[in-house]
This record gives sequence, C-alpha cells and structure tokens, in this order.
Amino acid sequence: MRQILIIGSGKSTSYLIKYLLDHAATESLFVTVADIHIENAERLINNHPSGSIIQLDIFNDASRHEIIKASDIVISMLPAHLHINIAKDCLKLNKNMITASYVSPEMQALDDKVKAKGLIFMNEIGVDPGLDHMSAMKVLDNICEKGGEIDSFESYTGGLIAPESDNNPWHYKFTWNPKNVVMAGQGGTAKYLKEGRFKYLPYNQIFKRAKPLNIPNVGPFEVYANRDSLKYQKAYQLKNIKTLYRGTIRHLGFCQAWDVFVSLGMTDDSYIMANSENLSHRSFLNAFLPYHPIDTVEIKLQKLLKIEASHNVFEKLEALDLFNKNKYSRLSKATPAQILQYILMDSWALSEQDKDMVIMYHKFGYICEGEKHEIVSTMKVIGQDSTYTAMAKTVGLPIAIATLYILNKKIRTSGVQIPILPEIYTPILAELETNGIVFIEKQ
Amino acid sequence: MRQILIIGSGKSTSYLIKYLLDHAATESLFVTVADIHIENAERLINNHPSGSIIQLDIFNDASRHEIIKASDIVISMLPAHLHINIAKDCLKLNKNMITASYVSPEMQALDDKVKAKGLIFMNEIGVDPGLDHMSAMKVLDNICEKGGEIDSFESYTGGLIAPESDNNPWHYKFTWNPKNVVMAGQGGTAKYLKEGRFKYLPYNQIFKRAKPLNIPNVGPFEVYANRDSLKYQKAYQLKNIKTLYRGTIRHLGFCQAWDVFVSLGMTDDSYIMANSENLSHRSFLNAFLPYHPIDTVEIKLQKLLKIEASHNVFEKLEALDLFNKNKYSRLSKATPAQILQYILMDSWALSEQDKDMVIMYHKFGYICEGEKHEIVSTMKVIGQDSTYTAMAKTVGLPIAIATLYILNKKIRTSGVQIPILPEIYTPILAELETNGIVFIEKQ
Repeated sequence: MRQILIIGSGKSTSYLIKYLLDHAATESLFVTVADIHIENAERLINNHPSGSIIQLDIFNDASRHEIIKASDIVISMLPAHLHINIAKDCLKLNKNMITASYVSPEMQALDDKVKAKGLIFMNEIGVDPGLDHMSAMKVLDNICEKGGEIDSFESYTGGLIAPESDNNPWHYKFTWNPKNVVMAGQGGTAKYLKEGRFKYLPYNQIFKRAKPLNIPNVGPFEVYANRDSLKYQKAYQLKNIKTLYRGTIRHLGFCQAWDVFVSLGMTDDSYIMANSENLSHRSFLNAFLPYHPIDTVEIKLQKLLKIEASHNVFEKLEALDLFNKNKYSRLSKATPAQILQYILMDSWALSEQDKDMVIMYHKFGYICEGEKHEIVSTMKVIGQDSTYTAMAKTVGLPIAIATLYILNKKIRTSGVQIPILPEIYTPILAELETNGIVFIEKQ
Repeated sequence: MRQILIIGSGKSTSYLIKYLLDHAATESLFVTVADIHIENAERLINNHPSGSIIQLDIFNDASRHEIIKASDIVISMLPAHLHINIAKDCLKLNKNMITASYVSPEMQALDDKVKAKGLIFMNEIGVDPGLDHMSAMKVLDNICEKGGEIDSFESYTGGLIAPESDNNPWHYKFTWNPKNVVMAGQGGTAKYLKEGRFKYLPYNQIFKRAKPLNIPNVGPFEVYANRDSLKYQKAYQLKNIKTLYRGTIRHLGFCQAWDVFVSLGMTDDSYIMANSENLSHRSFLNAFLPYHPIDTVEIKLQKLLKIEASHNVFEKLEALDLFNKNKYSRLSKATPAQILQYILMDSWALSEQDKDMVIMYHKFGYICEGEKHEIVSTMKVIGQDSTYTAMAKTVGLPIAIATLYILNKKIRTSGVQIPILPEIYTPILAELETNGIVFIEKQ
C-alpha cells in the first residue's frame, strides 16, 4: 500500500481526492487528508475505505513531521507561502512532494539538495500554472522538432462561470480564492513582448487596456495582461520570439467595470479605512469619490468616469448593491480590498448547482522553411456543480496524475521541477484526455 | 566659541550657512561643514574666517564620532534615512541635533533617552515640514485661546519657478531633489477629511483630481493632495475638525500633463527596463503605449488619453523632447523613473540666474460664539538666483535660527521635537520676518 498525504482540503481538492480514491484499489493507494478544519475533507472522503482524515495544525512541528514520515509522497494544497515548510520536511525525511504553486526563490534554492537525494519536488502542476506549461510545451517542442522557429506565443486562461449558470451582469462568480481575484494585477507592472518591442502596463492600465479575444467555437471574450509574460521566454527557451503575451480571460464587459474599483482605489489592501465597521456599501463607495455639496454618489461617479447613467457599468455596480445605504459589511479595521471582497462574495458566490468553466487558449506563430504558420490549442472544461468544479478538476487532476506517475516511477527526473519536460507532460496530457480535459489543436 | 557642525552641503544649505556665518562674530559661532564632496561647501563658505570644511565619509564611524564630539550642536542635512546614525551618535555624545525631515519611527523611539539626557532633537523644521507647522500652529493656538473651535484647515505649499524665470510650458523647474518630484504621490494612498467624511485617493487619481486654488494677490494655481493629511489631526490636536486637507501647489496645467507619466507607468521605480541604454526618448515613451501596426506614437497617445493633438499636454511633452527618436538617455539597467528623471533634468534645470518661488497658503475655518470665521495666511518668497533659492531660504533659515536659539537656550524643551510649541515658533517666526519670510494673515 502506497501512502499519499494531502495537506490542505480547500476548494481545489475535490477531483484530486476523487481521482486518487477511484484508483486506490487498482493502484494500491491509501489517501490521508490533513487539515485543521476537517469538515470538507470528511465530505470529500465520504467514508471511503482507502481514505482517512487527520486534524493537523501545520505549525505544530512534531505532528507535521510524524504524519509526513508515515507517507510515501506529499501533496501540499496549502496557500503558496506555506509550501516551503513542508518542502524542508520532505527533504529531511526523503519524501517526494507536489504543489500547484509557482516555484518560490526559497523552493528553487532547495534544488541541489533535492537532486542530491534523488527526490522529485514537482511544482506548478495545476491549471495555471500547470496545464498551460504542459499543453504549450507539447506544441512548442513539436514545432522545434520539425525545424520551425517560434515567432509568437500568446496564452490565455480563464476561470469563468458556465453559460448555463451565468445569471449576473458581471458574468462572473468566484470559483477560486476570492482574495486573489480582488488582488489580481497588483503584483507589479505587467510586462510583455509585442512584435519585438517590450511593453509595460502599470496596474491602473491593465483593465483599461483589456483587449477582445474571440476563441473559435467557444465565443467572444476579453483578456487582460498577466504580470510578467517575459519570464516565460527563459522557461520555455523562446530565444528569438517577437511576441509573448499571457493574459486572463473574462466575459465581455467585466474589465471595464472592474477598472472602476482599480481606478478609485477600492482594491487597495495596504491601509485600514477609518470607521470601516460603520460604512454602508454606499459610504464605502463614496469614500473614494470627491466631495460635492449637492451631487449624489451616482452623479459623482458618472462625472468622474465620464459615462452616462445608462452605461452597463452602472448595472454591474448596482447588481452588487454598491449604492445601497442600508447594507453594511460591518468589518472592523478593514482595508478597502477586504470590504470589496465581502461585498463581491455576497453576489458572486456559486450556488450549489452552479457550473463553472475553465478555458485555456494558446496561439503559436512559427516560421518553417521561410513560411509563417499558426497553431491554436483550445481547452474548455465545464464543472459538474459547486464542489466538483472545472477549476477543481483542472487544478486537481494534473496533480493526482503526476502523483501516481511519480509513485510508479513513470516520472523520474529529480530536482525542483515544473512540468515542461516530455517525460512529464506526455503521459499526463494523455491521461487527462481520458478524463475529459482535452486540448484541440488546429493548424 | 560655539561649534556648529553641518553634515551635508547640498542645494538646501546656502542660506543656512550664510545666516550662521553672518552671525558668527556677534554670536561667537564657528561653522564646520562636513561632506564627502567638498566643492559646494567651499563655494558657500568662501574662505570665511568663521567657517571650515571637512571631507567626511559618514559611513566611517571613527571620523564621524570624532567630528561630532568636537561640536556643540549638529545639523544633519543628509538624506532623511541617514539621520538616524547621526542621532545615535548625538545621543551617545550628548549633542543637540537638528534636521528638516519627518520624524521617522526610529527617531521617535529615541525620545525617552533624549529627554533623560535633557537634549533637544529638533526635526521637521525646514519649509514643509517646518514653516507649515509653525505658521499654522501660531494661528491655531490663537484661535483656541479666543475660544474658537477649529472646523477646517487646508494647507498648501509649492516650490515653483518665479514668474520672471518661467520660460517652459510646464511652468516648472527643479528647485529641490528631482527624484522626490518624480516619486511624488507614490508613498501610499492620499487621505484627507472633507466635511466630516474620510476621503481616499490612490496614486492614479492624485493628479487627475487636482483642484484649482486661487491665492488672493498671488495668482491662480492648482493643487494635488499630499499623502496623509489625517496625521496632522493628532499632531495639531484638531479633535473635532471636519475638513483637513494638505496639498502641493503647481502652476495651472502641470497636473494634467504630469498625470500622463503616472497613468502610463513612467514614474515607476520598481523594475529595470529591458535594453534601457538603447531606448531613445521616443522608444521610452512607446514602451508604455499599446502596440499598433500603423499608428504613430503621437496618435496612440491621443487615442489613449482621449485628447486632441492641439491639447496643451502635447506642447508640454514636446518641450521635453519626448517624441525625439534621436535623443537617448543612455542609462543602462535603469528604471522608468530614472529615465524620466534624466529627461526632465535636461529641460527643468535652473539656469544660474533663474529665480524660484516658494508659496505657502493656509486656510482656517473656525466657529466662535456660534459664528463661522475664516483666516487665511499667505507666504511668498522669491529666490535670488540658482544658489540662493527661495527653497534654500525657506528650508535653511528656520534651521539656522532654531540652531542659534537652542545654543542660546531660548528653546529649552527637551526630547524628539517638531516645532509646534509657542516657545519654538514664536521667536523663530519673528526672526524669519526680519529676513523676508513673512506670513500675511487675513480674517
């Protein structure tokens, strides 16, 4: 029996746990889920004979060591900044490890030691980062093998609401960490390459300069620029690339309305608002508008944004009850971002039967024998309900499959890894296809 | 003979040194100026018999100690973050100390020890902070003495170019640290009180929401909000105040044009631009504009800013040679802010005979016996030339006078101070008046 330890049982773990339990009998697996709050784990394990739950305070070194020691491989589904403690334990106790998060500098620094012990610390193997690496590298490696030279690479991902559950004017609901949605774009200037020129977008321009993206057979969307597209030039070895852009997909109209929050400073998480517990939604909004002796909040907003009262931005703000003077978040000592998140969660929560949708779309331009070519690769996954979401599926299945392949020594390259090697992405993408995560490539 | 040590001999020290040397004979003063670069100090001391110059590396602990030990009082004119080392020396060696900078938390933490030794560490005694504290507290204390209750306080300061030397379309030249001008507004969300409501302005809105300010008998200006007006509520004990706003004065039209740099991200000092040494001024600007296969930089800028080619913003940008494709900053590994500063310094440097202008304007509203009253207090100082600037005068003279009064025990209150006590501001304001720094108060 191989012991798999999953630390953390948040929203993205439903399919991960399901896949491993479904393969428990044939693959001799036993799955232990550890979390400080065990309710969600109980619901997901649902008394399966090959599963167990442990209540774990990850800051208790002794119990964390003990549980890791008893396992053959460790999956950390904790918030990103907490992986490093687990990684240090795994290194000490000679365990392989998997996360869906970006490789932090501290994680990267373990590479030599991880290699020396012949261990695998696989990171960035969720949806984005994860599926994007694998599906892109498959096409990129294929182009290079044929002697093509990559000229441009654009990559877009969106965690959205499925059309059948799309019933608010934002066409958006929270399918993952709401705080990350509120903070999107605040990690620093967005950087990308376009036709050989470096381009820079400060936070206040990111949503203003969203651009339309039509995905054939899926629909019209808009995209905003991700933080740092340039780092993928090195990771994917795209030496002579002229255009390199990564973006986030939203339904049409989202970005212009979201930009209201960005422009006014309502997504700021760096200071506490005075008397935050006594701010109605309307007063919260008004705190970011200029004072005027007569003009209403609505009129001040129209003047400031230079838009008419009939503009659809207003419909979106109204749908959040943002003009309501009788509704309160009641959050004390709260930042603007915290109050905004509270208001959004009220409107953007998934109902139990809501279906979400994850879309990924890559566009590759390359030159082969003097001729320009283009390949597009498209993936669309629709969720089942608010537990078995497309988000949980596209994050969790790559992790689950990688776990199994590492246990089975199908993946062998040691070190701190991201899934860009054929040894990794080829079998995982194949297995994902049989589970409904399919990339359709078109020349 | 009382030994005065001035550490640092930058732009703001001309009047400080002059005042102390002018009073050397009558007051038995000897002035030593210490700096790593002694050229400016040599020019300012100009072989005066009561002055000397020492070349000092302030990071050399032994020579710094030695020179401080030999002095009776120390004036630190170093960049703000370097004061704390001098302060610790002064505490150890029992010396009084003066700076024109905001009290840092580290400086404030010394308060108990400074008091215990009966020392005075006077801070925030330049122009802003400094003159603003003194001139405002004089009026505020006076209102309170009469039983008035302060209802509103607005305070504006500007370091500007004098009308007779105003020959560029920005109506602005650098009269103090250019980096601080480029970074203005980036210290965090601007916060103020207006008619009892807390208002918050993120960086991207600060210059967009500049407001007109007409100063009677001086002229029409515009002002943008300073970082944190709210902290003055506590410092000035303005318990029940409804409106509290501090702003920076600029000539009309400056803020809208400056906002182009802010909006596009050209004032960002947090990352290095790729190939920065090969960017022409035009390419630098273009790096912040969207790619377009046909549109010129000018047309892209018009579209993005939604302004006509004839708008005066374009005249201002052209005056900086920002559209020039044959001009280069040649700065390697440079941030956007560094390149922008280089370009601005080329256009905004003071010529030798240029005169600058410092304006301060306070507006106090108060209620006395049920009636509303208003007092305005205005100061305008014109510089003599590019060495004896109004900026150097309004920064340096309060420091010089405070130094003398501390030496003469006219100022006695010990501790880490700012000049808000009558003991401090009354004699200093009086002496400033005889030196041409005059506040005109009107009911």
